[in-house]
Amino acid sequence: MEDAVTLLLVEDEPLLQNIMVAGLEDAGFRVVTAADGATASKSFHANADEIAALITDVRLGAGLDGWEVARRARQMRPELPVVYMTGDSAADWAAKGVPKSVLLQKPFAIQQAVIAVATLLNEASSTITHNS
Amino acid sequence: MEDAVTLLLVEDEPLLQNIMVAGLEDAGFRVVTAADGATASKSFHANADEIAALITDVRLGAGLDGWEVARRARQMRPELPVVYMTGDSAADWAAKGVPKSVLLQKPFAIQQAVIAVATLLNEASSTITHNS
Amino acid sequence: MEDAVTLLLVEDEPLLQNIMVAGLEDAGFRVVTAADGATASKSFHANADEIAALITDVRLGAGLDGWEVARRARQMRPELPVVYMTGDSAADWAAKGVPKSVLLQKPFAIQQAVIAVATLLNEASSTITHNS
Amino acid sequence: MEDAVTLLLVEDEPLLQNIMVAGLEDAGFRVVTAADGATASKSFHANADEIAALITDVRLGAGLDGWEVARRARQMRPELPVVYMTGDSAADWAAKGVPKSVLLQKPFAIQQAVIAVATLLNEASSTITHNS
Amino acid sequence: MEDAVTLLLVEDEPLLQNIMVAGLEDAGFRVVTAADGATASKSFHANADEIAALITDVRLGAGLDGWEVARRARQMRPELPVVYMTGDSAADWAAKGVPKSVLLQKPFAIQQAVIAVATLLNEASSTITHNS
Amino acid sequence: MEDAVTLLLVEDEPLLQNIMVAGLEDAGFRVVTAADGATASKSFHANADEIAALITDVRLGAGLDGWEVARRARQMRPELPVVYMTGDSAADWAAKGVPKSVLLQKPFAIQQAVIAVATLLNEASSTITHNS
Repeated sequence: MEDAVTLLLVEDEPLLQNIMVAGLEDAGFRVVTAADGATASKSFHANADEIAALITDVRLGAGLDGWEVARRARQMRPELPVVYMTGDSAADWAAKGVPKSVLLQKPFAIQQAVIAVATLLNEASSTITHNS
Repeated sequence: MEDAVTLLLVEDEPLLQNIMVAGLEDAGFRVVTAADGATASKSFHANADEIAALITDVRLGAGLDGWEVARRARQMRPELPVVYMTGDSAADWAAKGVPKSVLLQKPFAIQQAVIAVATLLNEASSTITHNS
Repeated sequence: MEDAVTLLLVEDEPLLQNIMVAGLEDAGFRVVTAADGATASKSFHANADEIAALITDVRLGAGLDGWEVARRARQMRPELPVVYMTGDSAADWAAKGVPKSVLLQKPFAIQQAVIAVATLLNEASSTITHNS
Repeated sequence: MEDAVTLLLVEDEPLLQNIMVAGLEDAGFRVVTAADGATASKSFHANADEIAALITDVRLGAGLDGWEVARRARQMRPELPVVYMTGDSAADWAAKGVPKSVLLQKPFAIQQAVIAVATLLNEASSTITHNS
Repeated sequence: MEDAVTLLLVEDEPLLQNIMVAGLEDAGFRVVTAADGATASKSFHANADEIAALITDVRLGAGLDGWEVARRARQMRPELPVVYMTGDSAADWAAKGVPKSVLLQKPFAIQQAVIAVATLLNEASSTITHNS
Repeated sequence: MEDAVTLLLVEDEPLLQNIMVAGLEDAGFRVVTAADGATASKSFHANADEIAALITDVRLGAGLDGWEVARRARQMRPELPVVYMTGDSAADWAAKGVPKSVLLQKPFAIQQAVIAVATLLNEASSTITHNS
C-alpha cells in the first residue's frame, strides 16, 4: 500500500472532474485524468501497466466517445474494470457497453463511484485465473 | 451530479436517525427522514419520483412497520432499492421482505449502510430494461 | 406453456446447428435458425417480438460476425439474453461482447448451452423493472 | 441419492401440472402436487421437513394466492427455495414476492423450471450457516 | 463439439457412481471415474489438460478425502471448477472447501449435479482473464 | 449501533496495520489487531462471539500463515466473513482460500478493504438461514 492504485478518469466537464478526483483520492486512489477520448486512449496506451481501472463519461465532445475508449482499453487489457458515467445514454449500455462493466446514471453520489470501482477491483483480484 | 440523489430514511430512534443522516450525507446523498410508517408512506407518495432508495427500520412503533412501508413503496416503484435495518426481526426477512432487498442487522457500521444502498443503486442503473 | 419460447440460433456449421437444435428442442424451446449474420439480423428484425434469446456463433463466414449480430439485436431489444459460442475468439469477448452475456468456449456439452440460455431467461424474468 | 428430493408444486391448471410433474420427475425430483392454496398450505404443514422447495403458480382460483402460500411456507422454513410461475402478475413480484425467489414468466420451457429450482437448491446447500 | 468435455468424478459407492455417470453422459459430458483419493489425484496429474471439472465425494474411505483431492487439483489448475458431494460433511465446507466451489448435499437430484458443473464451466468461460 | 462491529485485523507490518486500523475505524468499525498467526488464533478463540469478520495478511512471519488462521476461525464460526491481503500469494488463493472469501492484492486503496468487509457482512446478514 506504499504504492497507490491508479485510476484513469475521463470526463470533459471540469467541475465534475474535480469533484470526482477529490472523492476518489479521499478513498485512497491515485487519479490520472483526461478530458477527451483521444487523450484518454493515448494516456492509456502510455501507462497501460499502471492503470488499474477506467472511469469514463460516455459523451466526450468531438472524437471517441466513452464506449469506444473502453473497447480500446479492453483490447489491450481484457480484465480492466470499467465504469461508465452518463446522463442520457443509459439505454445504449446494453448494446455498446463491455461485459462486466458498471453504469452510473447521473446524478449519482460520489460514494457510488468509489464503490463501483472498488467492487470491480475486488472481484478482479478474487478471480481465479489460469496458471502461466 | 449538480443534483443530489435523495434517500428516504425511516427511523424512529432520534439518535440513530441523526447518525445515519450524517453518514449518508457525508457519502454524498441527500436524505429525507420520517419517524413512523404513516409519515414515511405519505412522504413517499408525495415525492415518489424524487426518492431513489428506501432505508427503513423494521420496528416503527404503532402503525405500519418497515415491511409494510417497503411493500407499499415497491407497489408504486417496483425497481426501488430497499434496505431494512433491524435488531431482532432478521428471521422474518425471509417471509416479509421484498425481492432484491438487503437486511442490515444491528449493530452495523455506518459504512455498511452506505455501501448497501450504493450497491443496490449501482445494480439498478446497470440493469438492462425494456425499451419503451 | 401452450406457447413455446423461441430462440434464434445463428450457426454456420450444419452439423453443430443440428446438434444444438435437437438439444434446445429437447429442453422445450422452439428454435429459429440462421447460418450467416445478414440472415440472422433480417430474421431478428422480422420477429423481434417473438424471439426470447439469441445464441450465436462468433465466426460466421463473410459479412456480420456474431459480435455485430448481438449488438444490433440489443439495440432493438436491450434486455435480450445473448449467448456466444466460440472456438478461438474467447479473448475478444472482453472488448466486443455485450453486458450480461455468456460466452461458451468450444467444445462444450449441449446442456451447457441449455443452462446458459435458461439461466439468462430466468434472470431476465426475475428482474425488477420500472412501471410503465 | 437413494432418497429423492421432494418438491411441492402448486398449479391449478391440470394440463400444466401434468407437464411440470413429468419434467421435474425426468430431472430426478419427487413431486407432491396441490391445485389450490389451502391444500398447498396444509400439505406443506404436514410435510414441512420433507419438502425441499416450492414451485407455485401465482393465481390459484379462490382462496390463498401463490404469494401468500410462499410467505406462509417461508415463515415455517425461512431457507426454503421458492419459484413463482405467472402469466400476468410479474409486475407484482417486486412488492409481493419473498427475497431470493425466482419468477418464471409464462410461457417458459420446462427446463427453465428445472434449472430455476436446482440452482436455488444448489445455492442453499452452498450457503455457509451458523454452527448450532 | 466434436470433442467432448471431460469431467473427473470421484465416488467410492459403485451404485451412486453409475447413476452419476449416466446422468452426466446424458447431459453430453465425457466422464472419467476414480473410486478413491489416491487414484483420483494420479488420474488428475496424468490428464490435467484434458479434465475440465472435478466432481468429488467428500468421504472416500482410507487415504485422501475429497477436500484434499480438490486442493491438490487446484494447485495444478487454479481455475478448475469443483463440485463436492456429501451426506454429512456439509458443515466442514466453510473451513475445508476451496473458493468458488459448489457443495451438493445428499440426497440431490441428478440434474442438480449437471447444473452445478455446467454453471461453473459457463462462468469460467465467461471470465475475463489477462492477456498472455 | 451503540455497540460497534468488531473486526480482527492480522498484519505483521506495523505501518500497514496502522493505516488499516485508521481506515476501518473511520468507516465505523472497532478493530482488534494481531501481528502474528498464533496471537490471532488465540485472540479469536478468546473473543469468537464478538468478532464479526477477519481481515488477514497471508504472510505472517514464522508460525501460522493467514490461510491457516482463516481455516481455524471458520472451523469455530463457519459463517465468518474472511478477507485476505497479499502481495505475492494471490495464485495460492484458489487452493488455500476458504469459500466465499475475498482476496485483496497489494497495493490496494484503503476503501477497497472497507468495501470488501462491509459487503461480506451485508451478504451474511441478508442470508436466509434455518430456524433453530
